[in-house]
Amino acid sequence: MDVSAGPHMMLAMSDYPECETLLLRRQGWRLEVTLNRPETRNALTHQMMREIGAVVDRVADDETVRALVLRGAGGHFSAGGDVNFMTDLPPPPAPGQVDPLVEPYRYFGDVLVKLNHLPQAVIAVVEGNAVGGGFGMVCCSDVVIVLEKATFGIPEARLGFIPSQIIPFIVRRAGSATIRRLAVTAQRLSGREALAHGIAHYCCETPEQAEAILNDVLVEIGQCEPSAIATVKRLVLAAEDTPVDAVLDDAAQSLVDLLRTSEAREGMAAFLEKRPPPWANST
Amino acid sequence: MDVSAGPHMMLAMSDYPECETLLLRRQGWRLEVTLNRPETRNALTHQMMREIGAVVDRVADDETVRALVLRGAGGHFSAGGDVNFMTDLPPPPAPGQVDPLVEPYRYFGDVLVKLNHLPQAVIAVVEGNAVGGGFGMVCCSDVVIVLEKATFGIPEARLGFIPSQIIPFIVRRAGSATIRRLAVTAQRLSGREALAHGIAHYCCETPEQAEAILNDVLVEIGQCEPSAIATVKRLVLAAEDTPVDAVLDDAAQSLVDLLRTSEAREGMAAFLEKRPPPWANST
Amino acid sequence: MDVSAGPHMMLAMSDYPECETLLLRRQGWRLEVTLNRPETRNALTHQMMREIGAVVDRVADDETVRALVLRGAGGHFSAGGDVNFMTDLPPPPAPGQVDPLVEPYRYFGDVLVKLNHLPQAVIAVVEGNAVGGGFGMVCCSDVVIVLEKATFGIPEARLGFIPSQIIPFIVRRAGSATIRRLAVTAQRLSGREALAHGIAHYCCETPEQAEAILNDVLVEIGQCEPSAIATVKRLVLAAEDTPVDAVLDDAAQSLVDLLRTSEAREGMAAFLEKRPPPWANST
Repeated sequence: MDVSAGPHMMLAMSDYPECETLLLRRQGWRLEVTLNRPETRNALTHQMMREIGAVVDRVADDETVRALVLRGAGGHFSAGGDVNFMTDLPPPPAPGQVDPLVEPYRYFGDVLVKLNHLPQAVIAVVEGNAVGGGFGMVCCSDVVIVLEKATFGIPEARLGFIPSQIIPFIVRRAGSATIRRLAVTAQRLSGREALAHGIAHYCCETPEQAEAILNDVLVEIGQCEPSAIATVKRLVLAAEDTPVDAVLDDAAQSLVDLLRTSEAREGMAAFLEKRPPPWANST
Repeated sequence: MDVSAGPHMMLAMSDYPECETLLLRRQGWRLEVTLNRPETRNALTHQMMREIGAVVDRVADDETVRALVLRGAGGHFSAGGDVNFMTDLPPPPAPGQVDPLVEPYRYFGDVLVKLNHLPQAVIAVVEGNAVGGGFGMVCCSDVVIVLEKATFGIPEARLGFIPSQIIPFIVRRAGSATIRRLAVTAQRLSGREALAHGIAHYCCETPEQAEAILNDVLVEIGQCEPSAIATVKRLVLAAEDTPVDAVLDDAAQSLVDLLRTSEAREGMAAFLEKRPPPWANST
Repeated sequence: MDVSAGPHMMLAMSDYPECETLLLRRQGWRLEVTLNRPETRNALTHQMMREIGAVVDRVADDETVRALVLRGAGGHFSAGGDVNFMTDLPPPPAPGQVDPLVEPYRYFGDVLVKLNHLPQAVIAVVEGNAVGGGFGMVCCSDVVIVLEKATFGIPEARLGFIPSQIIPFIVRRAGSATIRRLAVTAQRLSGREALAHGIAHYCCETPEQAEAILNDVLVEIGQCEPSAIATVKRLVLAAEDTPVDAVLDDAAQSLVDLLRTSEAREGMAAFLEKRPPPWANST
């Protein structure tokens, strides 16, 4: 199966938000979102955060998309918050008032929550820097493909501030032992170290190898029934923060609901008859 | 010490439930439970789940058992839910009624909770497939010994349904980074990968090596005082889901309660006098 | 930068508690605390726990300390609870009374909580045994440097009792899969295994290598702004136990508060002008 071709290839992107800082490319049921401020190593601005948020909101409702591929233009994923913009502070609030600077940063947390909970499969491809907010987006992805020369870090304390909205996501993904070390030393992990620490799933020597793995992973995702993927992702995320019994109740009901769908009936029949299920060929 | 021999070797198993799908074998304080539907790679049926549940309930009360060894007949651990049985659905419930299919699946979650919380040491030996529910049982074990050719996965989405009751256990054992990848791609981990991801503790090339390691591990378990094992398992599991202060309170009281037992007094005296404790020779 | 020298080198330690079981050494902004009962492999007594607690309390308020280095005298970190003392039990309490033995043990849990939450960077250097309570202190550190010959374990069940106050910290650091195995078998992990399991960050062959790495790590810590380190540590620890949204709210406000400090303004200006920030040279 060639996931880059198919009847939906030319699907209009006209219902997607216009973006200045992102490139969107649609191929069949695959949507590729490229962070596109290469002159800054795709450093995050509030505009870019808003555009990522708008795209993620749209994808969450778009059943024609089965996989989101996140990557960066120009050889880097993202260098994190753009310091040139961060130094430009509005006047401090009057005493007792909320600082107007809080909301724009807090908004990025909501974007990460939504990205993390997308019903579709999310794949991150990381060539160079994935720092701060870039590292955070990687930690909200289901499959992470990195190059050896990629670097992951939270060096904000060197500049006198902190990684912020990414913290819950990088702690859940990498564990607090790794994150505490990176936080107090401002060290970077290489692509190979990210693999060893369970942050990445594949580490490649060349971009060509990364593309080949990406294509293989997309073929594998294409074998899986989309609403089953959405349900298992929801339950796995619930299991991180919800008491065991509540997850078990939800999981039993969700399984039975799926078993009664025509998709599961077709899928089990196809399995028993050793033929591909109907969704496996629709790109 | 040869843990396969001993005065209890012929202990009656008559007070254990009769099982059609499991083989029970008692050797001293070791109880071996073998999933025994090899013609289906030990695929799980509701009957097998009920029999596992009944055995686990019995073991929980049997102080003569100090270790439970879980394995599969015929070269596999378990292929997960038996699709031949899963396709046989009862009629859907009337509107507003609970689906009668929920309870039999939800029951397996209770079995996994009880297996996970058994006061005795639990060892899983995995030769081939450990998929779906089989993978879940592995994640409820204290020590996991696998062969290189073993495979671990949750490929249910390929058939249009989901892994269900195992989710909280595999997330806690393997981390959501690994589980999310397996969930959306239906990939399998090899025995060696399971070792690298912290799911397995030993990876062997041959069944003979696995047996040798199993025997060594049983000898080590035999050095440990059974109620101390039960207490530390309880506290470790509590630490996964309970606020730190509550665990610390429980742990301090539990330690003092144990220190006042004759077992601890004997154990500490034996340690200081460099001789084995009394429980170390009773198989 | 040589972090072992500097204007504060001779800073009075007179305001630190007098300790019989610990050696304190101050070098610039680095405080080295050495467990110092080498004749017992630095086994923990209630006196040593109280002295560690008093020092940690003092460090938490001492802004002139930016890094705490924890180590053991005589080639070991700590062998855990001193069995010679543990066997000396007070009479059991009257029925219905609290056992007076609980509080001294529970106190060590408070010490570990405070150590874990210290606003400064904490580095553990482990040469030999780090067992029981010693293993627990390692798991409360931000950076862990070990020798290959170091060993980590919770073998208490061999003596008929349990690891107690360390449980929440070792479960969070090493994961329950590793900890359950160590708990029921009394096995030890080597330094190299501790590295593979994410408990240690560096594994060295010689003490000289460990010292070189320690110095490098201190230089890296010296590049980071101290209140940023304190804030990110607080948020990372909150992320382990607090709902995502609450952490995101706290993190957004904390980031904005820091961005409005003169330190962050200086730090960002220094970054953009490619010069070291003001705090990078103060040892």
